[in-house]
Amino acid sequence: MRKIDVCLSPDLIHLYDLSETAVVVVDIFRATSCMVTAFAHCAAEILPVEEVDFCKSFKEKGYLISAERNGITPEGFDFDNSPFSYQVEKVKNAKICVTTTNGTVALRRAESAPFLMVGAFLNLSKVTEALKQWNGNALILCAGWKGKPNLEDTLFAGCVIDELHGHYQVADDAALMAWQNYNIASKDLQTAVKNSSHVNRLLKLGIEKDIAFCLEKDKFAVLPVWKNSALRVES
Amino acid sequence: MRKIDVCLSPDLIHLYDLSETAVVVVDIFRATSCMVTAFAHCAAEILPVEEVDFCKSFKEKGYLISAERNGITPEGFDFDNSPFSYQVEKVKNAKICVTTTNGTVALRRAESAPFLMVGAFLNLSKVTEALKQWNGNALILCAGWKGKPNLEDTLFAGCVIDELHGHYQVADDAALMAWQNYNIASKDLQTAVKNSSHVNRLLKLGIEKDIAFCLEKDKFAVLPVWKNSALRVES
Repeated sequence: MRKIDVCLSPDLIHLYDLSETAVVVVDIFRATSCMVTAFAHCAAEILPVEEVDFCKSFKEKGYLISAERNGITPEGFDFDNSPFSYQVEKVKNAKICVTTTNGTVALRRAESAPFLMVGAFLNLSKVTEALKQWNGNALILCAGWKGKPNLEDTLFAGCVIDELHGHYQVADDAALMAWQNYNIASKDLQTAVKNSSHVNRLLKLGIEKDIAFCLEKDKFAVLPVWKNSALRVES
Repeated sequence: MRKIDVCLSPDLIHLYDLSETAVVVVDIFRATSCMVTAFAHCAAEILPVEEVDFCKSFKEKGYLISAERNGITPEGFDFDNSPFSYQVEKVKNAKICVTTTNGTVALRRAESAPFLMVGAFLNLSKVTEALKQWNGNALILCAGWKGKPNLEDTLFAGCVIDELHGHYQVADDAALMAWQNYNIASKDLQTAVKNSSHVNRLLKLGIEKDIAFCLEKDKFAVLPVWKNSALRVES
């Protein structure tokens, strides 16, 4: 049977062979939740880049620009890192250049994978459908927080494993532990994450509604896929 | 309150500030369980080194030598990586040079910590007593398997956190998840680890009795502590 594994941090990605693997990058709070939301509102393309200044330079190339560092948006950008920012008319048909603390790094580190997609609770079923159709092994890459594993991305990984039970075998202990953590949390994700370090960080920023939104399952039926150094939704 | 954190892999140790931190290195199957067993049988010193040939060179310096790679002992060594190897008369007062796949690497990467000790279920209470007396933050460094997190070391980390509840606060999500994983597993550790990848690796080597032994709590009242590049038990 195909195997599914979990990489708990982008700083561990060197330990995984991506050459024939479908990779799902996840950054629940909030990069991949924002990306899914943007495509659900008909964005044409999302281009993740690592540097804030480089991101800014895309403004004059016709992109809308979005940046976040430590949860906060620097001045002069079109979007902050809230999924509510992307539920507006100007997203339609837009090309958006994005840089975030963790999610962008994770995507860039996995770009050698033959099938690289963006996952969030918001598009859970699109992710699991794609993996059911994939003819090989799979890896969920958690963006974490500055290299450290985090609870919410691990819970998403465990949720995908749970949904794929019978289709994929758990490959290793990180996947087994993520699945266990999800099973504890599954009945009430909002309560489960309330003690996590990133939720406490976000609550200080006053964005409770983002947390609730990012934990909603299957709100959107889009699957952002990596192709030619950018994300697009396959039509 | 003091904080306790968990580093799930030696490949993530660069993310943690060890300068004022008590660090517990754990490699349940089987390096730190062997070390604790050797000191419980009155070994004088354990010197962990990273290379098999370098370890071998200590034979002529009056050391007994022990090596393991991928669970197997190369020829010409005094001990393999089973805790039963160390329950023999020749261990008494011996200086032992050791190299293992994961445990040695973890110790070497944490040697900048002001207080570095070796933990296992076998000496659980000695570890938690030492941390109760320590006047600062603590980190449990899981040796894992070739850089990847593993279940048994994570469960030990969760167990220490559980024992220190009320004395230390959970610092971050890795610690929170380890604690959750332990709470699921605590009633029957042997059953809990039976699906882990390393146990399956060990079962292929035919060492079921080592697994049961390494999961016993508080069999020995010794605390191996790092000093001058070697481990000794404080008298």
